[in-house]
Amino acid sequence: MTGPVGHRVWAIAEGYIPPQSTGTSRELTSHETVCILNVGDADAQIEITIYFADREPVGPYRFVCGARRTLHLRFNDFSDPAPVPKGTDFASVIAADQPVVVQHTRLDTRQPALALLSTIACPVA
Amino acid sequence: MTGPVGHRVWAIAEGYIPPQSTGTSRELTSHETVCILNVGDADAQIEITIYFADREPVGPYRFVCGARRTLHLRFNDFSDPAPVPKGTDFASVIAADQPVVVQHTRLDTRQPALALLSTIACPVA
Amino acid sequence: MTGPVGHRVWAIAEGYIPPQSTGTSRELTSHETVCILNVGDADAQIEITIYFADREPVGPYRFVCGARRTLHLRFNDFSDPAPVPKGTDFASVIAADQPVVVQHTRLDTRQPALALLSTIACPVA
Amino acid sequence: MTGPVGHRVWAIAEGYIPPQSTGTSRELTSHETVCILNVGDADAQIEITIYFADREPVGPYRFVCGARRTLHLRFNDFSDPAPVPKGTDFASVIAADQPVVVQHTRLDTRQPALALLSTIACPVA
Repeated sequence: MTGPVGHRVWAIAEGYIPPQSTGTSRELTSHETVCILNVGDADAQIEITIYFADREPVGPYRFVCGARRTLHLRFNDFSDPAPVPKGTDFASVIAADQPVVVQHTRLDTRQPALALLSTIACPVA
Repeated sequence: MTGPVGHRVWAIAEGYIPPQSTGTSRELTSHETVCILNVGDADAQIEITIYFADREPVGPYRFVCGARRTLHLRFNDFSDPAPVPKGTDFASVIAADQPVVVQHTRLDTRQPALALLSTIACPVA
Repeated sequence: MTGPVGHRVWAIAEGYIPPQSTGTSRELTSHETVCILNVGDADAQIEITIYFADREPVGPYRFVCGARRTLHLRFNDFSDPAPVPKGTDFASVIAADQPVVVQHTRLDTRQPALALLSTIACPVA
Repeated sequence: MTGPVGHRVWAIAEGYIPPQSTGTSRELTSHETVCILNVGDADAQIEITIYFADREPVGPYRFVCGARRTLHLRFNDFSDPAPVPKGTDFASVIAADQPVVVQHTRLDTRQPALALLSTIACPVA
């Protein structure tokens, strides 16, 4: 493939970590995920900023998505500079120094059968 | 980040508030949501118009999405100029005076396990 | 709003009408839906063509989405020129003579709790 | 319809084959699907590459999506050059020699009620 694959800045307007789970394994714990794909030959430095309804944004959260790798990050696991609160509306902007592709997925097991949602994120730059 | 993030007009062709819920909390009440993200440094004035299958559109519903804030609105909560009827097909156009990012989500608990859908809205201007 | 809202041709690569339902009402019968929004001031003539894995396309199925109206069509209800078979992979192209916005949704009640998916369709012209 | 319909390269940043199923039929076995639509009059040669979190990409997996046909492929069924492991994060790039439309869908029956997700893939060339 020739040329860059994807975009350097993406936004996800939806964000919510369900505060309960009926599953007990990590896989079946309710989670909110951002999936990043870097098909290029250089590692991508990723900076994620979290936006809230009623206070200033938090971030950047820093990650590396290696060359020719995909990185599926759970917002549940974010810790530095601060955890992402559960049961709280948020949104996110994902900025990379290389073109990447971003998709948003939630697994929700608050009731005793899991639910899923997913959408391509919004390329914004 | 430099430059505007998002678009000023978005459309969502799907819309339906499930008329029943098995959940009793606000969180587990069936709902239809529009999520708006404004990463800019100016508040965004939002006007939402609701379209129906068999009658003229209703609106605008007016909201403000603050600078560097996200606003997750439930169509269930809309009241002025009129509530959005449950169990009725509708669609929506979201217009802002600043660039924003818009995503559409539904949580449906009509049967005793929740279901979710989500998609980026369609940027149209 | 000024200018056209949407596109004249859209494609949906996914299509599948689940052949069973646990729900008995029309609302909880498994269904595959295409949602069309026409915010313009002229009625939109819609032609939908259905593509299959192993035979020639079928169509056009003809509909009208009125000016300033939304039309949520169930593929389950298509009849002329032929019903869309259940339990069969298909895809669709939606062509309109006015700009419209198109979204794809499925409700699946094969197991005793509904599932949902939705995505914006792919604008192709 | 005139002109090409779709794009030649698409990316899906999300990918995960749920390792368990409560359904026993092929239809209700957990699966991850890529749906391809080729509305053109020439067969499309498809090459899919799978990306992982911690090792080099695998592929290409080769398929043909016939002229005026749709092809719904389960990653579960991929075998040559290697199966796609279950319970493992992955991503994919779909390259075609004709314009096509691509959509991503998952059916997850790990818990006793199915869940669905779907999104249009990301056009990247």
